Amino acid sequence: MEHEEVRIQRHSLEDFCRKIFQQLGVSEENAATASEVLVAADAWGIPSHGTGRLWRYVNGLKSGQMLPDAPFEILRETPASLVINANGAMGAPVSVRAMNMIIDKAKTNGSAFGCVRGSNHFGIAGYYAKMALNANMIGIAMTNTAALGVPTFGRQVMFGTNPLAFAAPADKEVAFLLDMSTTVVTRGKVEVYERLDKELPDGWAVDKTGRPAKDARSMLDDMQNRVGGGLLPLGGMGKAFGGHKGFGLAVMVDILTGVLSGASFGQGVFDTEESSARVSHFFGAIDISRFRDPDDFRRDMDDMLREIRRSPPAEGEEQVYFAGLPEMEKERENNRIGVPLLKKTYEGICAIGKEQGIQCPEPISIS
Amino acid sequence: MEHEEVRIQRHSLEDFCRKIFQQLGVSEENAATASEVLVAADAWGIPSHGTGRLWRYVNGLKSGQMLPDAPFEILRETPASLVINANGAMGAPVSVRAMNMIIDKAKTNGSAFGCVRGSNHFGIAGYYAKMALNANMIGIAMTNTAALGVPTFGRQVMFGTNPLAFAAPADKEVAFLLDMSTTVVTRGKVEVYERLDKELPDGWAVDKTGRPAKDARSMLDDMQNRVGGGLLPLGGMGKAFGGHKGFGLAVMVDILTGVLSGASFGQGVFDTEESSARVSHFFGAIDISRFRDPDDFRRDMDDMLREIRRSPPAEGEEQVYFAGLPEMEKERENNRIGVPLLKKTYEGICAIGKEQGIQCPEPISIS
Repeated sequence: MEHEEVRIQRHSLEDFCRKIFQQLGVSEENAATASEVLVAADAWGIPSHGTGRLWRYVNGLKSGQMLPDAPFEILRETPASLVINANGAMGAPVSVRAMNMIIDKAKTNGSAFGCVRGSNHFGIAGYYAKMALNANMIGIAMTNTAALGVPTFGRQVMFGTNPLAFAAPADKEVAFLLDMSTTVVTRGKVEVYERLDKELPDGWAVDKTGRPAKDARSMLDDMQNRVGGGLLPLGGMGKAFGGHKGFGLAVMVDILTGVLSGASFGQGVFDTEESSARVSHFFGAIDISRFRDPDDFRRDMDDMLREIRRSPPAEGEEQVYFAGLPEMEKERENNRIGVPLLKKTYEGICAIGKEQGIQCPEPISIS
Repeated sequence: MEHEEVRIQRHSLEDFCRKIFQQLGVSEENAATASEVLVAADAWGIPSHGTGRLWRYVNGLKSGQMLPDAPFEILRETPASLVINANGAMGAPVSVRAMNMIIDKAKTNGSAFGCVRGSNHFGIAGYYAKMALNANMIGIAMTNTAALGVPTFGRQVMFGTNPLAFAAPADKEVAFLLDMSTTVVTRGKVEVYERLDKELPDGWAVDKTGRPAKDARSMLDDMQNRVGGGLLPLGGMGKAFGGHKGFGLAVMVDILTGVLSGASFGQGVFDTEESSARVSHFFGAIDISRFRDPDDFRRDMDDMLREIRRSPPAEGEEQVYFAGLPEMEKERENNRIGVPLLKKTYEGICAIGKEQGIQCPEPISIS
């Protein structure tokens, strides 16, 4: 029951979200961008960042946490760099604009980087990194988030799930597209265990004393109330499996997003009951043609990615995947047969539609 | 016994290594640079990359794997980029030169990146990332290595331990300096377990079938002979603890080093009994002043790093450290009381000294 799905044509789902955002005061252009990024997550098979979050965006826009069409402000700009204050706007539209500016700068400058501060949830980091590919560039995107992660040997949250994305183009193979949080898991995963009343595996999170957290409910409460405890960095508990490396990566993302943009970082980024944190993003593009012929680069990427894809699987496994391959395979399929939404998600967005007077998109099939 | 240590003045140890390299045909300048980077590893408390490796460098120079003073060749250069062919030279001298060129370029261009191909072991990646700090820049350094890592769901080595380093300056605090391999552990760690005849912990490595490897000896043999098996990426086995993230990071490093420089990558980088792999490096620098006043940046970094350092430790732990803090604390101490070498390492370098007619440096104290 809980996993019943419906499928909706991608453009119908985008249209629906766009109309909702417009209804809440967002301009047509920005609403279209925000919808495209949101639905891309569902299309790529990352429902945690898809239309299941629509209600949060709606609440954000209603409460003034996200300001519809807040004018973004360029705080600093050089041929190599860009710092933008989003002034509380939705994350996706300002991020797409920033990434496009970075790509243009990298065309002239060879490489360029930019920060966006005072922003909100921008969806999947990989969306922005991927934008660089058509320009024969390597793309980079990161964001900090509300502090949910506990340092190695610590017991208090000091950094976010801080995802980083990296994209590099291939030719016949789909692009390499890494998009990863720097914590072992995200809060959403722990919430699933809470709903199922399942014990947390060792290595995902610690409790308020800094010991492995077993009980999802109390861990989430204590983390939310800043009593102590939180998610572990990639690599898990202590140093034996490299937890200090994931911790370092999370701080690296916080430096490039929060510190480099002059905004909040670490514990200073937090959600409350009423609103979510204002966050900062980091974007970059590196022009491959400054190093070698992009066609040769793409050909070598094909070789590398094909070798990985065809490398022998472990006993009991079917295939080895490189980062981005599962997402692009899903997208191809979902563009054809419709984007899958959990029935619960579908009912949720239809309830929003009803409230806003927007007709819910018709499902293609119910399985 | 095995852990008996001697301490040697840092400059005496550097002088000794320099003389050895000169004796083997390396120019005074290059020998001095190679020694400085090698000894820095011991001074920072990373003996796996220090003078314990001197015999490998000596063997490399003797066998022609490392060519003393091979002329390096600039294959491509723009204001934003650099591609160098090291032509089989020692890794450190060409890497220091490349990083200095990148930093100079970033001064004019805002950011700059470069690759070195056809190179050898360059020591600790963090050394090069750290070079950017005095110029008020963020520093980046990576290298690929011989393939020792197994992809998520795979059973054959497809990438190296591929370390990445990232440095950002602070003011009163020591700099943030992340230097991490992208596999859970390095081969050296497994070799220690082999010597101690200890069972490998789950999550470090897989055997030739792709299942968790218990026996260090057979895992190392099978990996070396490419029968199957190898080290797991950061995040360990499968996807439950984020192994696919570490795998993605390792491939990212291979793309920026091997593919971007037009050199070997993946399985194409391998050691044989006689010689070690020719590898590629990647270096980058981003000028902070293009984003904000570097003094403000450094002040915010101080706040961030101090908050981390002072955050409450888990029960049973003494302190939370940020990346780079333990290394810089050790360096300060070792500069004062001498660089520690395992007695076995000391005896090893003295044997090399005897062979090359170079007097071994006098220990300060034997503990």
